[in-house]
Amino acid sequence: MKKLIIASTSTLHGGSYLDYILPVLENHFKDCETILFIPYARPGGISHDEYTQKVAETFTKINKKVVGLHQFDNAAKAVEQAEGIFTGGGNTFLLVTQLYENNVMDVLRNTIENGTPYLGSSAGSNITGISMQTTNDMPIIYPPSFKTLGVIPFNLNPHYLDPDLQSKHMGETRETRIKEFHAFNDIPVLGLREGSWLEVNGEKITLKGDLTARWFTADNIPVELETGTVF
Amino acid sequence: MKKLIIASTSTLHGGSYLDYILPVLENHFKDCETILFIPYARPGGISHDEYTQKVAETFTKINKKVVGLHQFDNAAKAVEQAEGIFTGGGNTFLLVTQLYENNVMDVLRNTIENGTPYLGSSAGSNITGISMQTTNDMPIIYPPSFKTLGVIPFNLNPHYLDPDLQSKHMGETRETRIKEFHAFNDIPVLGLREGSWLEVNGEKITLKGDLTARWFTADNIPVELETGTVF
Repeated sequence: MKKLIIASTSTLHGGSYLDYILPVLENHFKDCETILFIPYARPGGISHDEYTQKVAETFTKINKKVVGLHQFDNAAKAVEQAEGIFTGGGNTFLLVTQLYENNVMDVLRNTIENGTPYLGSSAGSNITGISMQTTNDMPIIYPPSFKTLGVIPFNLNPHYLDPDLQSKHMGETRETRIKEFHAFNDIPVLGLREGSWLEVNGEKITLKGDLTARWFTADNIPVELETGTVF
Repeated sequence: MKKLIIASTSTLHGGSYLDYILPVLENHFKDCETILFIPYARPGGISHDEYTQKVAETFTKINKKVVGLHQFDNAAKAVEQAEGIFTGGGNTFLLVTQLYENNVMDVLRNTIENGTPYLGSSAGSNITGISMQTTNDMPIIYPPSFKTLGVIPFNLNPHYLDPDLQSKHMGETRETRIKEFHAFNDIPVLGLREGSWLEVNGEKITLKGDLTARWFTADNIPVELETGTVF
């Protein structure tokens, strides 16, 4: 049975890394001694080692060991054998490129489908959707495909931002960008605000956290979903 | 001799379409009766016809006719024979995909190199750089390549936004995203704020408008360039 926590962000304003969600993670990973960390998204360009170290320090708070996927010669086998998996945020184009280049995309999908507990934040959440086409990230590298894990039946826009009515900036709002996506694609998109997460148990997907989330479908006006909503 | 106006945005806050730059365009296109408009980027998903109509209404103010590239059976030939060319903003992934699919990318590059006056705004400016990899847009469609015209020897980030120090949002700032680009690419990036534009005359590139622009190179601290700077 699938078991995922899919978080909009790793860190809330004024908080420290994953602190707001650590009690949830303690339960989520309760049967795991060691978490396999996928550091491919490299936020701000930090190294795989640095990123893994940062995550390891956080997970000691709930008595989990952390190993980085980059430390294994056979990445696919490491994923398959993991007790629990966490994919961190950063650049989604880079993450997806690396998942394909290291032949991890398919095995990661199967491993999640088979019930290995998975945690994603930001880019690591983005890839649980059908495609990465509603990422906010810059295309710093050309991936072989935009197709992602599809372990949930829609797409995500993490770090969802409401239009700033005071802003004089004329760049597109997040809502306009998602509307452009829907001019060419039918996949629903969930705008997940910072502090929200999805809990997936088998086919049951529940919106968690204090905030509402914004649900976009092609040809319809977007709607606000209350926390606790089951998809 | 190359002759380009490369604008960060079509519209300033509180202004109307292209109004802030219309006197410049009147001179830029002084030898053209008709402007060929490339509507491929479709902001907000509007149709090619609607977009071309909007641009045509604006250009009547400086007595120019406008025809849409989508109206021609042979797009490459239409580009080659144009008196002047304008590529409007919208989604850069869509624009680049369409330029490749309609076999326009190479002929557009050659036409600009041969001296046909070109105007770009936003996505239409992005494509004048070496690659589209510093766009802000969502990857709503998978282009055959991220390589663009390369008629200027660096990349652009249009609608450049300074970090909002009051914001509690934890998504990456524009500067962080460009830093991630430079972890994998050596191409310099010019952050062009709304209201700034580049004027290209042959190999001379000049920063115009009232604002400074931000210049990012790999492994260096970004610098502010004064208006009037010649690259």
